Amino acid sequence: MADAEAKFDLITRRLQEVLGGESIKAILAEGKTPKCYWGTAPTGRPHIGYFVPLTKIADFLRAGVEVKILLADVHAFLDNMKAPLELVAHRTKYYQHVLLAVFKSLGIPTSKLHFVEGSSYQLTKEYNLDNYRLCAIVTEHDAKKAGAEVVKQVESPLLSGLLYPGLQALDEQYLECDFQFGGVDQRKIFTFAELYLPRLGYKKRAHLMNPMVPGLGGGKMSSSDPNSKIDFLDPPEVVRKKIKSAFCEEGNIEENGVISFVEAVLIPISQLRLERLHGDTGADSEEGQEAVGDQTPFALEGAPEGTVFSIFRKEDYGGSLHYKSAKELKDDFTAKKLHPKDLKTAVADAIVKLLTPIREAFEASEEWKEVEKLAYPDPNAKPEKKKKVKVYHPPPPGKGKNAQQITEGEVAAAVPAPPPGQEIVQAAVELAKEEKPSA
Amino acid sequence: MADAEAKFDLITRRLQEVLGGESIKAILAEGKTPKCYWGTAPTGRPHIGYFVPLTKIADFLRAGVEVKILLADVHAFLDNMKAPLELVAHRTKYYQHVLLAVFKSLGIPTSKLHFVEGSSYQLTKEYNLDNYRLCAIVTEHDAKKAGAEVVKQVESPLLSGLLYPGLQALDEQYLECDFQFGGVDQRKIFTFAELYLPRLGYKKRAHLMNPMVPGLGGGKMSSSDPNSKIDFLDPPEVVRKKIKSAFCEEGNIEENGVISFVEAVLIPISQLRLERLHGDTGADSEEGQEAVGDQTPFALEGAPEGTVFSIFRKEDYGGSLHYKSAKELKDDFTAKKLHPKDLKTAVADAIVKLLTPIREAFEASEEWKEVEKLAYPDPNAKPEKKKKVKVYHPPPPGKGKNAQQITEGEVAAAVPAPPPGQEIVQAAVELAKEEKPSA
Repeated sequence: MADAEAKFDLITRRLQEVLGGESIKAILAEGKTPKCYWGTAPTGRPHIGYFVPLTKIADFLRAGVEVKILLADVHAFLDNMKAPLELVAHRTKYYQHVLLAVFKSLGIPTSKLHFVEGSSYQLTKEYNLDNYRLCAIVTEHDAKKAGAEVVKQVESPLLSGLLYPGLQALDEQYLECDFQFGGVDQRKIFTFAELYLPRLGYKKRAHLMNPMVPGLGGGKMSSSDPNSKIDFLDPPEVVRKKIKSAFCEEGNIEENGVISFVEAVLIPISQLRLERLHGDTGADSEEGQEAVGDQTPFALEGAPEGTVFSIFRKEDYGGSLHYKSAKELKDDFTAKKLHPKDLKTAVADAIVKLLTPIREAFEASEEWKEVEKLAYPDPNAKPEKKKKVKVYHPPPPGKGKNAQQITEGEVAAAVPAPPPGQEIVQAAVELAKEEKPSA
Repeated sequence: MADAEAKFDLITRRLQEVLGGESIKAILAEGKTPKCYWGTAPTGRPHIGYFVPLTKIADFLRAGVEVKILLADVHAFLDNMKAPLELVAHRTKYYQHVLLAVFKSLGIPTSKLHFVEGSSYQLTKEYNLDNYRLCAIVTEHDAKKAGAEVVKQVESPLLSGLLYPGLQALDEQYLECDFQFGGVDQRKIFTFAELYLPRLGYKKRAHLMNPMVPGLGGGKMSSSDPNSKIDFLDPPEVVRKKIKSAFCEEGNIEENGVISFVEAVLIPISQLRLERLHGDTGADSEEGQEAVGDQTPFALEGAPEGTVFSIFRKEDYGGSLHYKSAKELKDDFTAKKLHPKDLKTAVADAIVKLLTPIREAFEASEEWKEVEKLAYPDPNAKPEKKKKVKVYHPPPPGKGKNAQQITEGEVAAAVPAPPPGQEIVQAAVELAKEEKPSA
């Protein structure tokens, strides 16, 4: 069945690795809809590095895949418990706003996209009994090995790090997916899930892995260097400034975050748009109907047919460059025929074009703006505003008036790590008590 | 307050160690009722080694302490998952029958005794969120250290072993106890709880520890040697045979399970009974009213006032011996004035006397007898009977008729370890779905 093959190719294009692809082929061959799960923990502000998985998810959606996005709020809370649950709840909403806006800006219909909060099922009896059952068969050794690349490696490892691989495996069962998608850094977690889910009597899932993409600073994009991270809401001048300061050495395509971004995000988006212009939207005839923002590829006017990335250059400097693939662009860069400055300008233009509809959606939504304030309170706001935020470490008896005020830094940072006081426990229990439908 | 002091002495007598005794004194001084928790996992058939903690719990009950006995069914299930949940449920009921019968035979009122099944709260959202929170602050190192003496040390340790210390700590909070009671082998688990509960914002509990008592074989009484274990339902001839074969070297009071049993069980029970005869039942005026079976101390007729253990001996061999304390008896044994054979006969007589009302209670209860069959199916029963027991490993499709029959060994042993089939998962989820009130 040619259609099934085309869908499989779309689902797996540009991936670094596919484990269990046959099971997806079988589902497609039956004319059924494969189901995918991708997870993210709503912690810090999401940055444009998220375009990498989201661009790939756009392929899934175009191929008719049912995509569940797990907003792992419980994990975000547990991750050192820096952020109280209330804050995590706001961040979960913020992430949802951002991700939806990104898909709309890509012109991809979101009817087959489902957001699931981890707390909606990860605290149920069934899930926890399964967690215990898993812990009764998983060795420390296997759990440690599985988390080696993903769990922060510290001198005194915490038990939570050993639990995460198992929980992520259970999520596949509870989110009822056919495959889990993630970066290739998740490989050991994925093979762990393939090994252990069948031992609990559950189906082994397929695993689709994106290549790792370096950040604009050259390292992981999620690094804490604010200059290497471009926020989805950054205005054009900030985007241009950050791109200008990005590491992009002439002739060097290794550890080059700018080129990686072109290859992993900008060219794939151009490709999606070109394909749509040619009516080649696979299963989804609605594609593009609800799109917001400029939906043209990142090609200059007059670029040759099939161009996925153009770089403007004055005639004096050889004129504009047009590429039909990332390889062509990288070859030129390696040969020093393409200068970092020209590349950066073109990339900054493209990012500004990508972010414009997202920023406009933000500006148009009072709800999103309100959520943003609560999720990431301005660290420079005046103390009056801060009073809204609960201080989670109660003062000793009789010293209530002199209780420490949060005056600077993120709220998250202001909350001392262990031990949290009774109030956070209350908040935790409140959250736990909320009856949410199981996913 | 003299009464409070007397109660504290009763609560702590014969213990090897008390951590946090001041907090119990404070509760007693206020005229309040301290609350205690003691836990056991309903796995194999309980043997008379259980008299050791139960005799101590009798002291607690006499002192007016509210005692919660945790029947840790979830733990029993997880402990290598040898026993399916259905079987664990039967064993939980069996344990409850035995423990209640023991208290009745001791003449201790059980109105302040509560049985709590672990599954009634250990699978709730609150508990599991707390478990996750704990895992996010407990290091692997601390968890491993805490379990070192209690968790089975194997070559490839399982994650469950790392979770147990934390779960046992949480049980203190969820069972709302003021102190936890256990053998001194629990010491590291107890100090772990004292360290970590306050870090979750919960109260630090006191810990009361019994000395370790060797089994009749000389080692731990819970060893798998059936001859060293006397079942609560063993008839007199079996008791006598097992005691006869117990390790009890002349003159040697170390690693002597027979002498240890006299010291840790028989003499304390005599003492409880003597005190009751003198009207000295502390807080509890009802003591003895519902007692079943002979309530006299283990002293022969004509023994001097204050005798807690007598040993019958013919006049030719020096006449009977009467002891007012374990020390006197041990001194005589060390000096070889008391022969192992005479000691064993007296101990066997005492155990037979102790077990008679328990066995009678069993014979009189159709429910208990039914539960016993289900909890510990006869390994030698004919296949017809076995058909009642579910085979938990489903056969391959089309081979149902030839499915493996359980023909020998315990059901537990007949169920293959990992991987359990889909049916056990179903059973697990069924159990998980039952809404039980939180403890």
